[in-house]
Amino acid sequence: MDLKPIGFVRSEIKESVRRDWTGVVSEIVIDAKLTEALDGLEGFSHIIVLFWMHQASRGASLKIHPMGKKEIPLTGLFATRTPNRPNLLGETTARLLRRQGNVLTVEGLDAIDGTPVIDIKPYIPETLAGVRVPEWVPKH
Amino acid sequence: MDLKPIGFVRSEIKESVRRDWTGVVSEIVIDAKLTEALDGLEGFSHIIVLFWMHQASRGASLKIHPMGKKEIPLTGLFATRTPNRPNLLGETTARLLRRQGNVLTVEGLDAIDGTPVIDIKPYIPETLAGVRVPEWVPKH
Repeated sequence: MDLKPIGFVRSEIKESVRRDWTGVVSEIVIDAKLTEALDGLEGFSHIIVLFWMHQASRGASLKIHPMGKKEIPLTGLFATRTPNRPNLLGETTARLLRRQGNVLTVEGLDAIDGTPVIDIKPYIPETLAGVRVPEWVPKH
Repeated sequence: MDLKPIGFVRSEIKESVRRDWTGVVSEIVIDAKLTEALDGLEGFSHIIVLFWMHQASRGASLKIHPMGKKEIPLTGLFATRTPNRPNLLGETTARLLRRQGNVLTVEGLDAIDGTPVIDIKPYIPETLAGVRVPEWVPKH
């Protein structure tokens, strides 16, 4: 189960700091040998990007305060989006602005410059009934 | 970027055959050492499961007919959900029916018995404006 990057993020954002990624535009440069595997992605408005959060830590605590907020009780890491996880996989739905050859321009991808990209999947909306989240989760 | 399984799927479904997974109930048995990292997951109705599709093939074609349907033109693999990808990662939003210790009972997870689970993330609904998919995508 060794991951091979399929590409890398190119972004003006070079360090990992908690921030709002809304409106952040970046590029995903896919390995040129895989260019053909992107054909048809232009038909989707949004894509799911799986990436490896190379600056996060694997040996982290099992429980954390979500979003670093001490007023939220300690919570299991799998119930949060902390980057410090047993496997450093990030998963984000981003808007696909443009595809030009092997370069995807996306908006809202919360990954810094140089982040290895592991997979791209089309975003297909689902109707999920009765979605429920805890109080501490910010509204989107 | 080596993945360590955090657990395994336990299911009555033992082989990979194209099927409708709606209503399929299975269990995710998490490594007992990570039990505490699940605390708080019960507050979410749905979870995102990342898993390794161990029976799929990494050396697959760059373009395929989506869902094996010859009438749909050849499409780049990244524009489809084919399991045969450069990295064999599956990503599914499943309903969390129950958490008992290190065992999660879920509905709608399209993974067979014995599938290594790589990560669990809480499902947090997002409002995505202007979602668009190609004609060939089945409606949910």
